[in-house]
Amino acid sequence: MKLSESTTGPLPGSAKIHRSAPGRPDIKVPFRRIELGGGEKPILLYDSSGPFTGQEPIDLAQGLPPARSWLEGRGLEARQALAPQGLEHPAPRTIRRRPEGDEAPFTQLECARAGIVTDEMVYAAAREEVSPTWLRDEIAAGRAVLPANVNHPELEPMVIGRKFRTKINANFGNSALSGAGPASMADEVEKMAWAIRWGSDTVMDLSTGQHISPLRSWIMRNAPVPVGTVPLYEALERADGDPLKLNWEDFRDVLIEQAEQGVDYFTIHAGLRLAHVPLTASRVCGIVSRGGAIMARWCLAGHRESFLYEHFRDICALCRRYDITLSLGDGLRPGAIADANDAAQFAELETLGELTKIAHEMGCQVMIEGPGHVPMDKIADNVSKKDAFCGDVPFYTLGPLTTDVAPGYDHITSAIGAAMIAWHGTAMLCYVTPKEHLGLPDRDDVKEGVIAYRIAAHAADLAKGLPGVQAHDDAMSRARFAFRWHDQFNLALDPERARAFHDGTLPKEAQKSAHFCSMCGPRFCSMKISQDVRDEAARQQGMEAKSAEFAAQGGKLYVAA
Amino acid sequence: MKLSESTTGPLPGSAKIHRSAPGRPDIKVPFRRIELGGGEKPILLYDSSGPFTGQEPIDLAQGLPPARSWLEGRGLEARQALAPQGLEHPAPRTIRRRPEGDEAPFTQLECARAGIVTDEMVYAAAREEVSPTWLRDEIAAGRAVLPANVNHPELEPMVIGRKFRTKINANFGNSALSGAGPASMADEVEKMAWAIRWGSDTVMDLSTGQHISPLRSWIMRNAPVPVGTVPLYEALERADGDPLKLNWEDFRDVLIEQAEQGVDYFTIHAGLRLAHVPLTASRVCGIVSRGGAIMARWCLAGHRESFLYEHFRDICALCRRYDITLSLGDGLRPGAIADANDAAQFAELETLGELTKIAHEMGCQVMIEGPGHVPMDKIADNVSKKDAFCGDVPFYTLGPLTTDVAPGYDHITSAIGAAMIAWHGTAMLCYVTPKEHLGLPDRDDVKEGVIAYRIAAHAADLAKGLPGVQAHDDAMSRARFAFRWHDQFNLALDPERARAFHDGTLPKEAQKSAHFCSMCGPRFCSMKISQDVRDEAARQQGMEAKSAEFAAQGGKLYVAA
Repeated sequence: MKLSESTTGPLPGSAKIHRSAPGRPDIKVPFRRIELGGGEKPILLYDSSGPFTGQEPIDLAQGLPPARSWLEGRGLEARQALAPQGLEHPAPRTIRRRPEGDEAPFTQLECARAGIVTDEMVYAAAREEVSPTWLRDEIAAGRAVLPANVNHPELEPMVIGRKFRTKINANFGNSALSGAGPASMADEVEKMAWAIRWGSDTVMDLSTGQHISPLRSWIMRNAPVPVGTVPLYEALERADGDPLKLNWEDFRDVLIEQAEQGVDYFTIHAGLRLAHVPLTASRVCGIVSRGGAIMARWCLAGHRESFLYEHFRDICALCRRYDITLSLGDGLRPGAIADANDAAQFAELETLGELTKIAHEMGCQVMIEGPGHVPMDKIADNVSKKDAFCGDVPFYTLGPLTTDVAPGYDHITSAIGAAMIAWHGTAMLCYVTPKEHLGLPDRDDVKEGVIAYRIAAHAADLAKGLPGVQAHDDAMSRARFAFRWHDQFNLALDPERARAFHDGTLPKEAQKSAHFCSMCGPRFCSMKISQDVRDEAARQQGMEAKSAEFAAQGGKLYVAA
Repeated sequence: MKLSESTTGPLPGSAKIHRSAPGRPDIKVPFRRIELGGGEKPILLYDSSGPFTGQEPIDLAQGLPPARSWLEGRGLEARQALAPQGLEHPAPRTIRRRPEGDEAPFTQLECARAGIVTDEMVYAAAREEVSPTWLRDEIAAGRAVLPANVNHPELEPMVIGRKFRTKINANFGNSALSGAGPASMADEVEKMAWAIRWGSDTVMDLSTGQHISPLRSWIMRNAPVPVGTVPLYEALERADGDPLKLNWEDFRDVLIEQAEQGVDYFTIHAGLRLAHVPLTASRVCGIVSRGGAIMARWCLAGHRESFLYEHFRDICALCRRYDITLSLGDGLRPGAIADANDAAQFAELETLGELTKIAHEMGCQVMIEGPGHVPMDKIADNVSKKDAFCGDVPFYTLGPLTTDVAPGYDHITSAIGAAMIAWHGTAMLCYVTPKEHLGLPDRDDVKEGVIAYRIAAHAADLAKGLPGVQAHDDAMSRARFAFRWHDQFNLALDPERARAFHDGTLPKEAQKSAHFCSMCGPRFCSMKISQDVRDEAARQQGMEAKSAEFAAQGGKLYVAA
């Protein structure tokens, strides 16, 4: 059972290379290398796409080779997994966890606090081109997380935090309408691989259909990026879809099973409390988070406190044994412009701050989820409030969508908000596809959503002035000025579309080195005239000298005629 | 020669209606009216689409009926236009201008300063749902422009200014490769009509091919929105494409011809001066504005001052006779992230401030063009510098693109920047299509660009808190919460796509009133659960009371377990 050819192989003009982490020849991290013309050095880009842009074919039933080979030697409690019944499945493997009662540093947070630089940190630091000790200190302070369940050896470790490249997440998963055989499992993995190929840094499996558990085995064994879930969905499925039948014991069983499968982060809506529910009464769109709505229903029906809130320490204790990162869900995120930044949203956020302290105290990594639907003028306040209530733990937001009037284009309404909130400090952006609010995203929608979010993340990183980020833009700009069309295609986030669009007007190979483009033609080309200007100026007396002269005059213009 | 059916007729679920301006039964202005279910009142939206969403078929050879019937009675100098030779063409008409030497208030700016509320102001104010005298005062102060050449009777008057709805512009025009017969003329008009149908508030005809002048007649006679041009392009075409053959006399002839055709605003790159050219020497992308590059070449070749700068008062005098608005071009706008906010850009902007004063002094309306390629952190400064140098005249920006790495998606890279800069004060946004940098936009690209910019403009208006804007979002949000799917489609900026996306998963009519959607299915629907929550709470004791109680307790949560 092979991954389809269109979902594997290097991007056009790019090669996947591996470089050893500094001082660690045994740890090799991936980069996307683009060879350039015009005498320019190749450019290396951060590469989250894993084997899905590699040369090797991928056998889904086999799963990916382990990137974290070092897990073997950590001396963890281990047992052999049972092969699931009735469905073709990647090979059984070892299930690991922290030994019972062992208090040696184990989670990335505990290790970082103890001054230990883990192999995962070395790997992630090499990808970001930063020092591993600096990265460790960011984790120790809670400002960054490194989601890496010990049961996910296929993971290529990465870090999420406001001082690192902004990350993006894509959601996928089956629904009640999906099939249950190996073919439909392969379809889901294919969707995931497609999102990762185009640049998704993490994925969330939001399956709510049949056979959630075996599907997740397929996903985990083929995921080179951190995988997140909302365990409440599986719990609800087990409770026959009735929120009132949910209880802590069944929920815990779901957590354990998913932990053993290797899920790297759990979205837990533990901050939504009974007292918050009345605050949503006057909202235009009520509660739009599924997890939030389920918990609100549960709390209200029995007029009782959320079992997630009451058992939060138990949840932390469990996550700590596998090093699962907690992503504290915003069950009361606004689902409409009218509901943005309201009392319900911020009351829950305040509770998330309380839970953050508990999780940190227990050695668990934490990030905070955020909205949603927010007009531009209220975006910055979401970050400030998160900082005020929860400190500078990583913020992980969905968009936000900056208007409600454009269904069919919500990748754009939300890319605007996503770019802005990431600039203000969000560490990871959950994507939105064009189908949001309307239907199930297909392969094209997934790609549109991922690229829109790669744009938002990159625009934010540029605005934040992260080192090295602008080199990519500058390489593109130089290629543009020099009419190196192939370089422009290859440097693009989507080389295939860039080339196809150029081919649409000027398909011939000779036109790929033409010193003009189809928009203006040779006569009107500003770039060409601009080059003429430069040549002319050089001939006359040297523009640089002229420029210096101008500056020396205090920047005064010639006297007006 | 009819406009194609797909480019006319009301948008799905919408009707074009006309309402009399308050106190002026003779002036009827258009709105898009959407009937809603669930007992809601119909919603009225600003409607810039003219006859292209009306019921009547449109005969291109005939042109549109005049919206400004009052022009007849203004006592202007008039003569009959000659029918052009050799090409089928809309009927000849009267050419008007201000009588020679007449110093009575004539331009919208002069009238506004004299306290006169023109019919155009009445019309534009009724569309914006503001008072005509307030609008007049904005024009008098130079903070708004109302581009309306007296030779453009087909125009439905509108206003551009930071206190009004943010406007968007779409570019089109033929190139050297286009044909010359009536069919290819009709193609160009069709492109323009398509952009206007989807929400472009103004259009710019950037033709550089053959038969520029007769094509423009076709365009003007069929344009219900202000039309802008860059007269330098036609001048260059007449100069055989050689910038060095340009001169003031020939340029003036182009201005007069276009003025008589009815062009409403001219982009004039008069702020690019000889002294600025050396400032571009160290740029990554040189000069990317075509007008800027042409003028730089002209200045540098003879080491002489720009004839546009030197003849700026002559240009103003000419524009004043037809009431053509000056759009002062940014010939040195940055064409790369690396070049944003540099000395060249701001030196030219400072000169534009100087020219603004001259134009205002001569009674001409003025707006200022802006970039271009700008990272998010440098966007606000573009508005501040414009304000500092040029005062609060309307700013008219191209995007800006917030990164260079995503050719093929520059409608998105730039919608991010456009939304932000409009929030900061840009009055009109020039759109960018997905084909930017790569090829000629087709019909689909034009629509993608227009919708992306409608989103950016609306998001900005929301963030600015303009009265009435959020009513559209709220109507959508209520329709969402109540599962009124038809209302959601009809309220969308693109009702066709919204419906098509929903049909993709749930095509049946019965599913258009289903209380769930395909993303989550009935069991997981948060909106449905949220409604259950609301019902349950009402049953228990009234959530509003609960909410008040919570507030009375100072918003304190229950004591933690």
